Amino acid sequence: MALGEFDDWKIVALAGGVGGAKLAHGLAQILPAENLTVVVNVADDFEQYGLTVCPDLDTVMYTLAGIAARETGWGIEGDTFRCIEALAKLGAPDWFRLGDRDLATHLARTRWLWDGATLTDATRRLCESFEVRQSILPCTDDLLRTIVETDEGDLEFQDYFVRRRFEPTVRGFHLRGLPAALPSREFLEALDSADATVLCPSNPFVSLGPILALPGVREKVAAKAAVAVTPIIGGRAVKGPLAKMFLELGRESSAVEAAREYRGIIRGFLLDRQDVSRKEEIEAFGFQVKIADTLMGDDLQRKNLAAETLRFIRTGLSG
Amino acid sequence: MALGEFDDWKIVALAGGVGGAKLAHGLAQILPAENLTVVVNVADDFEQYGLTVCPDLDTVMYTLAGIAARETGWGIEGDTFRCIEALAKLGAPDWFRLGDRDLATHLARTRWLWDGATLTDATRRLCESFEVRQSILPCTDDLLRTIVETDEGDLEFQDYFVRRRFEPTVRGFHLRGLPAALPSREFLEALDSADATVLCPSNPFVSLGPILALPGVREKVAAKAAVAVTPIIGGRAVKGPLAKMFLELGRESSAVEAAREYRGIIRGFLLDRQDVSRKEEIEAFGFQVKIADTLMGDDLQRKNLAAETLRFIRTGLSG
Repeated sequence: MALGEFDDWKIVALAGGVGGAKLAHGLAQILPAENLTVVVNVADDFEQYGLTVCPDLDTVMYTLAGIAARETGWGIEGDTFRCIEALAKLGAPDWFRLGDRDLATHLARTRWLWDGATLTDATRRLCESFEVRQSILPCTDDLLRTIVETDEGDLEFQDYFVRRRFEPTVRGFHLRGLPAALPSREFLEALDSADATVLCPSNPFVSLGPILALPGVREKVAAKAAVAVTPIIGGRAVKGPLAKMFLELGRESSAVEAAREYRGIIRGFLLDRQDVSRKEEIEAFGFQVKIADTLMGDDLQRKNLAAETLRFIRTGLSG
Repeated sequence: MALGEFDDWKIVALAGGVGGAKLAHGLAQILPAENLTVVVNVADDFEQYGLTVCPDLDTVMYTLAGIAARETGWGIEGDTFRCIEALAKLGAPDWFRLGDRDLATHLARTRWLWDGATLTDATRRLCESFEVRQSILPCTDDLLRTIVETDEGDLEFQDYFVRRRFEPTVRGFHLRGLPAALPSREFLEALDSADATVLCPSNPFVSLGPILALPGVREKVAAKAAVAVTPIIGGRAVKGPLAKMFLELGRESSAVEAAREYRGIIRGFLLDRQDVSRKEEIEAFGFQVKIADTLMGDDLQRKNLAAETLRFIRTGLSG
């Protein structure tokens, strides 16, 4: 890759948690910081002990700050868990493992929100403190919550995902907060000034779905070049419940089904080399398909996949 | 002291922070657990990051649980400060040094209060977890806040005490929340069933003053045997701003002035051996005076002072 190959490009990346954070990190290694805006799902945010916890925003922020815990993908590397262990002894819920340093993020954010800041403001302040120079935006400053419909009834997302370890059988999803929730002004401005949008390898139902469900977002993303990176490799999700969700919804767990969720929105799809046999099925959705190594184990793989994604937009979608 | 000398006695101890906690700990070493009720000031409670922090309640609780930090007198021995250090880096207030384990207490309490528990309920739950068998009661479940009137204007107590390190010059005090705040039912019941009340060596203005200011408390305490242990030794407060407050209010910093605050309430006053020359002045308030070693450096000194106090009530006040 020529140095500065993408220096004139403005990219909006739509991201959920760990997978999204990794590709955002790859993009951050290539693009000038001021040219990358990562718009993050907030529909899995929740309240714990009165604190506003934003798992996806924090995962992206910690990842871009270079302090994310490598092994787990969430929280801060080397964090301690003294407070949550003490909470467990007090009989208080400890299923969401808040680290001691991580807790400071939630305490500060909650305080700022109480003082009248928007989540966008609070995120900007946090990013400044963590010296993240890229723009990280919550997709909305309004209430938006994924409700997972399961055989045990409706569950809030973290209740399903962390407390119940995504064991309940999924029947469907809906979003609380729609249609009142609006994309933030900052998000809409970023889409307007972007050259292209990258849909990171995040869960299409519970990570990118909520972002795309905000009024007007789908149309704005579709109006320019947009590509998605597959969240499924060889039938499996790299992390999280996506493969299980597909099966419980009576669908195949495959890149094809993931791609199907983005019809009408994207023009290109990055398919993992393992799944090359499914290429034609995805092309049948009207997408151009690029074969790539989509597993992002280390920083270099993140950077390489980001570069592949940008080149695909620049060259592959022109035809 | 004969074993079981006070086994048939029910005592209510009124306590503020560190001094009160030490004497309460002494009493706890002597009395059957079910016979000791420690009623604690809440007028220095405050909100930090949306959490309800109760410094005096926690100091008494941690002290009776045997986990209080010995050196500082507040917080938990061996606690770490990862969260507050991270908060400082985020530009959030860090003047109140919340330890990581201590923070769990505030998080759990705040959650229970939000769920509808009274502060009395929440304190009982915390005491159960910390295996404190004595009864620790907040003096009220209602809002009660000490406002310190200073040359820099009115300050909430912790703002004056911790953030400003009691540097502003005190002009007076008032309580926010009166006359609406009522003593809790549990507090009134404890007074009704107690044989005597002990006013611990706490600040008469900002620790015991708020407890005694609650409607009806003064009269109930005065109706039975009540003694106070001097919070001033040789003109100095063992800890905290009391001596400075007396001087700024144009009064002498002495045990005599401390005793003066309890006229009409107590019958006996425990004066430190250093201050024996002031005995007659205090007797002039109509109090019986007992000379004792009132400094409580270690557990044995706490126990001895508690025993002296109880014997004084049993024998000294009869005449």
